[in-house]
Amino acid sequence: MDNNPVFRPARIEDLPAIVAMLADDPLGAAREGDPGDKRYLAAFERIDADPYDELIVAEHEGEVVGTMQLTYLAGLSRLGAERCQIEAVRVGAAMRGQGLGRRMIAWAIDRARERGCAMVQLTSDKTRTDAHRFYHSLGFTASHEGYKLSLS
Amino acid sequence: MDNNPVFRPARIEDLPAIVAMLADDPLGAAREGDPGDKRYLAAFERIDADPYDELIVAEHEGEVVGTMQLTYLAGLSRLGAERCQIEAVRVGAAMRGQGLGRRMIAWAIDRARERGCAMVQLTSDKTRTDAHRFYHSLGFTASHEGYKLSLS
Repeated sequence: MDNNPVFRPARIEDLPAIVAMLADDPLGAAREGDPGDKRYLAAFERIDADPYDELIVAEHEGEVVGTMQLTYLAGLSRLGAERCQIEAVRVGAAMRGQGLGRRMIAWAIDRARERGCAMVQLTSDKTRTDAHRFYHSLGFTASHEGYKLSLS
Repeated sequence: MDNNPVFRPARIEDLPAIVAMLADDPLGAAREGDPGDKRYLAAFERIDADPYDELIVAEHEGEVVGTMQLTYLAGLSRLGAERCQIEAVRVGAAMRGQGLGRRMIAWAIDRARERGCAMVQLTSDKTRTDAHRFYHSLGFTASHEGYKLSLS
């Protein structure tokens, strides 16, 4: 990367590029659909309207090359601490291996710290062993089991 | 339990009982404070005002005996599917071992299904091995690593 990527909230015109990145993934390929599907638009609009939810894109030389969602969770635990949850982290295929993911997560951690969040949390599928090394190297601890129950 | 517990949204007067349950726990004891701390009240009010966040209590014979928080997360993944995240599950000491936790989680799953959530998710500290058997028996799969990074 000659120029630094810019991180900013996603705009509606970014939606096709974001959905394409979600689908271009060993796990995502089987569960995503047409970027024009109205359900993506509805989810985008809900996130966009929620002051505690941010869909972020990384833009590099005019292209959307990365995405992640940051949700600021309220809770009573730990003296009512706010936590930042990171979901749906993706780096576009052409930009992988160049440190963009590391910059994205570091940016998210800084943003959470500025808000006064007590914690940053995320889950990662147990098959994504490269991702586990990555999060460990960023200071995260795999302290929890992540349980899912599919209802569909 | 002779009578069935009632599950309902928490009211502000339930706050001391909820905070007491959060603190009466091997992990929670070290990180909670005075139930009258204004930060608990602020977190309660934020959850109460958020249509996608529910602090639930189980009430039995007029007493608050259990609590959990259900957050309905928006996201683009899986065709914009909504997910239900369960946090801060606690059963009061006097009611443990009588199936209340199972009823609470089953109720949460039903509620998520009625809303059309595609998934129920939660994380559980790796030291809580009893809880892991419990979630497994309810149909959850420990498919993910749960990463945390403390900022405090």
